[in-house]
Amino acid sequence: MNTIYNFSAGPAVLPKEVLQQAASEMLDWHGSGMSVMEMSHRGPEFMAILAQAQADLRELLNVPANYKILFLQGGGLGENAIVPLNLVGRKAQPATIDFIHTGSWSGKSIKEAKKYANVNVAASSENTGERAGFSGVPDPASWKLSADPAYVHVCTNETIDGIEFQFVPDIAARSNGAPLVADMSSHILSRAIDVSKYGVIFGGAQKNIGPAGLTLVIVREDLLGHALPICPSAFDWKIVAENDSMYNTPPTYSIYIAGLVFQWLKRQGGVAAMEQKNIAKANLLYDYLDSTDFYVTRVAKEHRSRMNVPFYLKDESLNAAFLAAAKERGLLQLKGHKSVGGMRASIYNAMPIEGVQALVEFMREFSLSN
Amino acid sequence: MNTIYNFSAGPAVLPKEVLQQAASEMLDWHGSGMSVMEMSHRGPEFMAILAQAQADLRELLNVPANYKILFLQGGGLGENAIVPLNLVGRKAQPATIDFIHTGSWSGKSIKEAKKYANVNVAASSENTGERAGFSGVPDPASWKLSADPAYVHVCTNETIDGIEFQFVPDIAARSNGAPLVADMSSHILSRAIDVSKYGVIFGGAQKNIGPAGLTLVIVREDLLGHALPICPSAFDWKIVAENDSMYNTPPTYSIYIAGLVFQWLKRQGGVAAMEQKNIAKANLLYDYLDSTDFYVTRVAKEHRSRMNVPFYLKDESLNAAFLAAAKERGLLQLKGHKSVGGMRASIYNAMPIEGVQALVEFMREFSLSN
Repeated sequence: MNTIYNFSAGPAVLPKEVLQQAASEMLDWHGSGMSVMEMSHRGPEFMAILAQAQADLRELLNVPANYKILFLQGGGLGENAIVPLNLVGRKAQPATIDFIHTGSWSGKSIKEAKKYANVNVAASSENTGERAGFSGVPDPASWKLSADPAYVHVCTNETIDGIEFQFVPDIAARSNGAPLVADMSSHILSRAIDVSKYGVIFGGAQKNIGPAGLTLVIVREDLLGHALPICPSAFDWKIVAENDSMYNTPPTYSIYIAGLVFQWLKRQGGVAAMEQKNIAKANLLYDYLDSTDFYVTRVAKEHRSRMNVPFYLKDESLNAAFLAAAKERGLLQLKGHKSVGGMRASIYNAMPIEGVQALVEFMREFSLSN
Repeated sequence: MNTIYNFSAGPAVLPKEVLQQAASEMLDWHGSGMSVMEMSHRGPEFMAILAQAQADLRELLNVPANYKILFLQGGGLGENAIVPLNLVGRKAQPATIDFIHTGSWSGKSIKEAKKYANVNVAASSENTGERAGFSGVPDPASWKLSADPAYVHVCTNETIDGIEFQFVPDIAARSNGAPLVADMSSHILSRAIDVSKYGVIFGGAQKNIGPAGLTLVIVREDLLGHALPICPSAFDWKIVAENDSMYNTPPTYSIYIAGLVFQWLKRQGGVAAMEQKNIAKANLLYDYLDSTDFYVTRVAKEHRSRMNVPFYLKDESLNAAFLAAAKERGLLQLKGHKSVGGMRASIYNAMPIEGVQALVEFMREFSLSN
């Protein structure tokens, strides 16, 4: 088997060390005689795995003591309903939620939230750039926030559109202290963040955390206890928090793998060190894209995602040949999302810089021979 | 490491062959160069894994063509809300759901359903036997069904109480054709069933299917499309069915493991052959329990579960000594659920008869020396 590099947007590449450890422990975790998959979630072995994963994540993200770390199920799309079900009850019904529309994922959140609240799209970057589609994050000074929203929702990294918040909007004074809720599915743990600036941070695990099927919610304690009566108990954050993510049987094996990823991240020097590596990887790819007109990008430079790099061949009739030649070189899953077309290289934490170097080298060669 | 036998009620023992295959494929699935955890759910590799798992399950349970097989998240407790959210819309609001209350799990379903409908407990076996608690399944002739319920809910195997339906109730003529909805979490795939007798069959995976975090729903097609407007899209069965369980990113690795379990089941001769093995295992344990008064059971003989065998030491002051001595012999996780106390041996498909033999042998020795 030749070296392959997997640019999937998620589920995505995991650190090889993590997979090796998981394979070696598959039939017997630490002499217990059991696979982690076979352990009662209430037994001492799994309780230790869960506690370690929570503690490591708290350390990695410097999560303040007044925030709960919850492990749920249902992914980002599930949270699009679960977040309003938990938070709109903070205000008289029907409440209003403010959204910043920066791409496909915030768009999906907007659509789902309409089931539970009035929606105010306070700002949108759709079709504001040179190309159709989303090109960046609207200037916070232009956001038309409501007087008293239940919360303000942002997707701080748009996986499909390749747009990333490079700043934390300071909105409390303009929104009656409404909490900022951030969908960080596709860039959490890729850069240092100040958790205290957010009310809720959530994300599906299948990019920088671990396997699909695990959902992470980090929530400030004062935001618990406002679930609507129609909120399913298994997704009521207060119930989940009171039961330490064990109200229903948690996705135990996924939590175990996430815990191995957290330990790998600590060995890499933590999130700050990872951020430097991610900057280097992203610069390598964007610098090349900026140096050629064979490939084009849509996103304004200051809003480019370090994790998801969409690009187009100027001559899109070459798309199929590009993908076939890339696969031949072991560069996999570069096809862009069907809704936006083109190509996309997702370069999450577990993608080594060698993978980006191989990609740039291939792209250069392809451009010269076509 | 000595041989251990894991009697956990779930997450529970998995076939060793499955774990060995998972370990060997962890870093490179079938020459793809990727772990299954790293694959895009929309790529050809995972699509093949999903299709095979669905086809094998359809074959194993002889699922008719007019039923959909859905892979979801949220477990049995999640479904306690998701089932009514999908089905009460079949009737004018507020609709009524009929429940048969046979233990802890149907009790949890009743409690959650009250958020979404009127609840009619058509029958209950609570405190009807010699000991307090649940002792069996009420005679269907005694069920006080509503004239026109949205559906009738049964839990066909009560994991905590050790009560199993040994028959399929025939209720359509008495309930205006209401569909029978069965929570089969803890005995699905352990015995032959006639899927056509049910409108919906659901269950968490973590007993006889695979890892926790995967939820199975088998639903008759005419029951799709009735979700309440407040049902989260990710849990709207019609949306999930239309997207072949890919509306949100599915728990890909758990589906892969479930697929390996399905293939193992086929190698064992399928569900009918597995049922014979399960009868033999259950008889071995119950015959011993019936032969002694050192241990006592609560459940009426005709309603005993083949999967979950709760029992009590007549002298409960010996409980701690029993558990310690069992662990010493490699017989793990025998403690009963905290809500009912005592002991419980869960003897799912993946528990070999040698494990039950070892348990009975130990129980006999313990009874003779105490």
